[in-house]
Amino acid sequence: MSHNSFGHLFRVTSWGESHGPAIGCVVDGCPPGIALSEADIQPFLDRRRPGQSRFTTQRQEADAVRILSGTFEGRTTGTPISLQIENVDQRSKDYGAIADRYRPGHADLTYELKYGLRDPRGGGRSSARETAVRVAAGAVARLVLGPDVRVRGALVQIGPHAIDGAHWDWDQVERNPLFCPDAATVPVWEAYLDQVRKNGSSVGAIVALEADGVPPGLGAPLYGKLDADLAAALMSINAVKGVEIGAGFAAACLSGEENADAMSMQGGRIAFGSNHAGGVLGGISTGQPVTARFAVKPTSSILTPVASVTRDGEAALVSTRGRHDPCVGIRAVPVGEAMLACVLADHLLRHRGQTGH
Amino acid sequence: MSHNSFGHLFRVTSWGESHGPAIGCVVDGCPPGIALSEADIQPFLDRRRPGQSRFTTQRQEADAVRILSGTFEGRTTGTPISLQIENVDQRSKDYGAIADRYRPGHADLTYELKYGLRDPRGGGRSSARETAVRVAAGAVARLVLGPDVRVRGALVQIGPHAIDGAHWDWDQVERNPLFCPDAATVPVWEAYLDQVRKNGSSVGAIVALEADGVPPGLGAPLYGKLDADLAAALMSINAVKGVEIGAGFAAACLSGEENADAMSMQGGRIAFGSNHAGGVLGGISTGQPVTARFAVKPTSSILTPVASVTRDGEAALVSTRGRHDPCVGIRAVPVGEAMLACVLADHLLRHRGQTGH
Amino acid sequence: MSHNSFGHLFRVTSWGESHGPAIGCVVDGCPPGIALSEADIQPFLDRRRPGQSRFTTQRQEADAVRILSGTFEGRTTGTPISLQIENVDQRSKDYGAIADRYRPGHADLTYELKYGLRDPRGGGRSSARETAVRVAAGAVARLVLGPDVRVRGALVQIGPHAIDGAHWDWDQVERNPLFCPDAATVPVWEAYLDQVRKNGSSVGAIVALEADGVPPGLGAPLYGKLDADLAAALMSINAVKGVEIGAGFAAACLSGEENADAMSMQGGRIAFGSNHAGGVLGGISTGQPVTARFAVKPTSSILTPVASVTRDGEAALVSTRGRHDPCVGIRAVPVGEAMLACVLADHLLRHRGQTGH
Amino acid sequence: MSHNSFGHLFRVTSWGESHGPAIGCVVDGCPPGIALSEADIQPFLDRRRPGQSRFTTQRQEADAVRILSGTFEGRTTGTPISLQIENVDQRSKDYGAIADRYRPGHADLTYELKYGLRDPRGGGRSSARETAVRVAAGAVARLVLGPDVRVRGALVQIGPHAIDGAHWDWDQVERNPLFCPDAATVPVWEAYLDQVRKNGSSVGAIVALEADGVPPGLGAPLYGKLDADLAAALMSINAVKGVEIGAGFAAACLSGEENADAMSMQGGRIAFGSNHAGGVLGGISTGQPVTARFAVKPTSSILTPVASVTRDGEAALVSTRGRHDPCVGIRAVPVGEAMLACVLADHLLRHRGQTGH
Repeated sequence: MSHNSFGHLFRVTSWGESHGPAIGCVVDGCPPGIALSEADIQPFLDRRRPGQSRFTTQRQEADAVRILSGTFEGRTTGTPISLQIENVDQRSKDYGAIADRYRPGHADLTYELKYGLRDPRGGGRSSARETAVRVAAGAVARLVLGPDVRVRGALVQIGPHAIDGAHWDWDQVERNPLFCPDAATVPVWEAYLDQVRKNGSSVGAIVALEADGVPPGLGAPLYGKLDADLAAALMSINAVKGVEIGAGFAAACLSGEENADAMSMQGGRIAFGSNHAGGVLGGISTGQPVTARFAVKPTSSILTPVASVTRDGEAALVSTRGRHDPCVGIRAVPVGEAMLACVLADHLLRHRGQTGH
Repeated sequence: MSHNSFGHLFRVTSWGESHGPAIGCVVDGCPPGIALSEADIQPFLDRRRPGQSRFTTQRQEADAVRILSGTFEGRTTGTPISLQIENVDQRSKDYGAIADRYRPGHADLTYELKYGLRDPRGGGRSSARETAVRVAAGAVARLVLGPDVRVRGALVQIGPHAIDGAHWDWDQVERNPLFCPDAATVPVWEAYLDQVRKNGSSVGAIVALEADGVPPGLGAPLYGKLDADLAAALMSINAVKGVEIGAGFAAACLSGEENADAMSMQGGRIAFGSNHAGGVLGGISTGQPVTARFAVKPTSSILTPVASVTRDGEAALVSTRGRHDPCVGIRAVPVGEAMLACVLADHLLRHRGQTGH
Repeated sequence: MSHNSFGHLFRVTSWGESHGPAIGCVVDGCPPGIALSEADIQPFLDRRRPGQSRFTTQRQEADAVRILSGTFEGRTTGTPISLQIENVDQRSKDYGAIADRYRPGHADLTYELKYGLRDPRGGGRSSARETAVRVAAGAVARLVLGPDVRVRGALVQIGPHAIDGAHWDWDQVERNPLFCPDAATVPVWEAYLDQVRKNGSSVGAIVALEADGVPPGLGAPLYGKLDADLAAALMSINAVKGVEIGAGFAAACLSGEENADAMSMQGGRIAFGSNHAGGVLGGISTGQPVTARFAVKPTSSILTPVASVTRDGEAALVSTRGRHDPCVGIRAVPVGEAMLACVLADHLLRHRGQTGH
Repeated sequence: MSHNSFGHLFRVTSWGESHGPAIGCVVDGCPPGIALSEADIQPFLDRRRPGQSRFTTQRQEADAVRILSGTFEGRTTGTPISLQIENVDQRSKDYGAIADRYRPGHADLTYELKYGLRDPRGGGRSSARETAVRVAAGAVARLVLGPDVRVRGALVQIGPHAIDGAHWDWDQVERNPLFCPDAATVPVWEAYLDQVRKNGSSVGAIVALEADGVPPGLGAPLYGKLDADLAAALMSINAVKGVEIGAGFAAACLSGEENADAMSMQGGRIAFGSNHAGGVLGGISTGQPVTARFAVKPTSSILTPVASVTRDGEAALVSTRGRHDPCVGIRAVPVGEAMLACVLADHLLRHRGQTGH
């Protein structure tokens, strides 16, 4: 990954700040001949869009995407696809007060340490608003992967409340505003989040991702591993602090016997008895579902004052009254899906390039 | 990361298989004028070298590194540094039996699915032996970072046995063969590992890394984040299944108040009351220690037979009698340190390139 | 260079077709704190803009650039700079007739051979219109280089008519619409081009570039040479068929004695008696002016019918009546300057990254 | 191209100095399953090897290549191929005298300006010796391209003496030590070179390259053009000062009618009446032969003293008595072929990656 690009053959370059006129990205290297219009992208943006429930920020952004290049008569031409989303709801006044001090947990301080200046409006480049363009790029990536590859995500933990994995039902995910796959957990989370929101507080979360139908062979040794690129892609999302593939950290407690995914022949194909590997061995996809999880820290913008300092080196308290998500992990679900789709699409092309398959 | 390279300005390209004549890497982009000889690298290789205790494989490799290019009269010239390590102890017969079947948990299957063939000798390219060149490159990276940056690692969990963080003592790490920072935990681990080894089994582990003295400003928005590149670098190590920065997955359970690292002025500089961020905000270093953890799965080579299939699609049991680490997590400590050093060195140069500082 | 990006640290990603809603680019990696507004870019676009004399296409494009991201209060922030130019004058009907046949000398055929389809409107992605975004990026690159580096270009040959180098006067270049540095040649070219235009024909040209004030040390061995990157950058411009550095092809006829640029000390600094090297030795800048030349083929769109084939494999004659430059080499002057500026800016940052200078 | 690597999917990383223990390269991304042994590479190295006629340096290097990784049982495995050539004939005393002064035309000065130090033995990294590894990589690239793609080169001009193109006979190229395709020119060149050598002088040359059988569609818009990458690859060769594709600089003098390569259907396929395009339109291969030419400056090491300066800033005369090629252009023929082969192989994989063809 260079500064604001990722991928090798399916390559996304992102630009834009929260309070500029627009945000967008350039998707370069997309295969030609794929049917693509705004209608293929918009539904994914709508899933990520804020203001759809009381559990996300009440900022109102239409998040209407425009395709400015790279298609002709509804098909990709193989040339760069420029995607653009106008910024509509830019209440800069919400942010004016924090231009002179560093919000703990935000990139205010580090942008200034690095660049000597920063765009303080809404977090500027480091605003979670940027994740909209990831979702747009991910929608294109899904088309590259084709209908046989299904990329899905769900929220599996909010604060201390984890779902019961035994109740997992993918159909539930789209039926509640929390992307929760366990119907019984939804009211628990809602009550908990209402309390968090009332307190002006925030909380972290864990997102689980799964891609099934991934052809075997995607990935490359040893630095271009599928899971290494996926780890970077997920860690590049705002507020993410941890990434797991397959069994993840739980693998530390397993014995070799427990961790081994036994193989057998089933109908002429290799089948696995379990999937601790998360669909990746030696950095290369096995054909099993690719599974990953990532941890999102609590929103740093909270009502409770936290000790900080001003740009002039004075002690200051920072308390944020703006319209913020009490749990940014919720809207991270479609973002994580998008990053997984982009990494898979890139590796699909890379694999095809090297091997012809 | 492309197939076998990583880094942008401090760029490492790795090559070699377990049972070929040698392994090595090319370190390109190293600043000129740095004093460098084999003696600067060898101690780090010796820390990683197998056969130093009963808890690692008894394979004997001198792991003697040679510098074949890039230095003149003991200083780096700015041209590519070729590092090479001969393979000495190649008992291919240990591996002959598994050439026709796929070892569960290994890359045997996926290399064949991807490439249509594989080098079965000792895992070929996917052997943990490759990590020696990472350690060699990391030793060069440390010199780029200079003496003010200290990169250290420790083993903090083996199987279910975690250290007591309250007893953490960096000085202990070099005093036991398990890189354990908690003296009281060493005998617990030794007894546990003896049992694991006796059973022909294996176990996973968790490694913790810390770099202090890291200048603020390293990293880049949003895809070239310091933590995104670090996540890829650590996940690219064999057998790693999870990566955390700072509070990591524990951040999911925290409230915004708990997670906030409060700031204050201390002696004219910004100080932090805690380090849940792991020294990285918005992908950019804060000046606090950069902290990360990664999970290593149990060695897949175990004595217990596991169900698998042959290349011809027949059911087969795989049991590995070779000389293997019961816990590859142990030797992953110097490897993780090396990857952290490489990522920091690369970002140091990238930051200097963009900003001149 | 990947598909539509170039540069490593100063990295430009271009997008857009001739007849889409807009064209643009993302400039990533620009140093922070540089004063930048549209007014810094527009004059360079105006120099390249068509319709300014009877010798260029009469298409009318305002070529008004907008900065959509990457600046705050008139300064670069270090984050990606999105530059966008709307397409205004899109007379698609001019091109309708050639959608079903391949124009000789154009990319019509090869885009279809590669991608299986193409955007036929105005040449689509391969239109010379794309060069506007190069000029925009080049204007930013000039600011990165600073006022001590001066990047200039001139047209030195049109068809068989070369300038007299002894009459070279940089001041003349901006005083005629042909970027000609030799006042005596201007009327010769004008008369010649009038004839070419009247015939519905076209003609090739040669552009010379010079950058003075380039600090020594820019460039990298052996594949990242300054001149290698410059060669790619110039050859990537539409219709360019040849690139020379310094003495160029004439060096083939020189003896070692003639070609040697003798050195002496002048006022405490190394001075050169000549500049056959074009300011680059071993791929690294010497501090002398960096000089390059490139050849532009004649515009392929001509009135004279040329034998071709249709998409259905039928013989066809192609004659282009649209509004075309009789000599695209003219408008290639500001484009060549821009590419030189971009390459120098990228190498300035890369050099600083590796060496700290 | 980064410092010492080139190519995206077929990626070569080169290392080594003239007088170190060895030189070599890592070829990463090579497709699997290709039959490859040292015997496939050595003949190309032998063609480039010095000391084979009185017209090249009398240095004796066996240039025996070893494959250290990336193959198993005589086939590529898809993992990185490490190629290594020992340096045998290192008479450092030849070069001792020039360690304290800058040889005009050499990279001595610029390496020191950039890095603050240099390896003076035999030109260090900038020695033409490095081109051996390009030839080795090129031999692998030819195998990737397969037998249907034929990459050939010839010397077409030495000093003022150009061949007669009408006499071109590819079979002649291997029958004389000057890679001359025109039998009648060989004695002219031999007599001329004998005189040059006797005078302790040197002379430049022009090399022509041709690849036939190149499938259409290779290349990418607009920055990853086939010809842009080829220009960089050729300009990256030591002493090259100019690159042309197809008609090259001569295109500047052509009218649109003259330059147009007319198309017609021949046996169900598109045929061209001429090849001014050099097999590339819009940066993408047409299926015609890809043709290029490059100019090589005269060897800078000559007997005639040239004014220079010492590292201490004193005036000095430099005269080189070592064993040097009077015309490095001769041995540049196999090097140019290798670079062309590498660029084509890379674009073959990239094209396949994006389009699946």
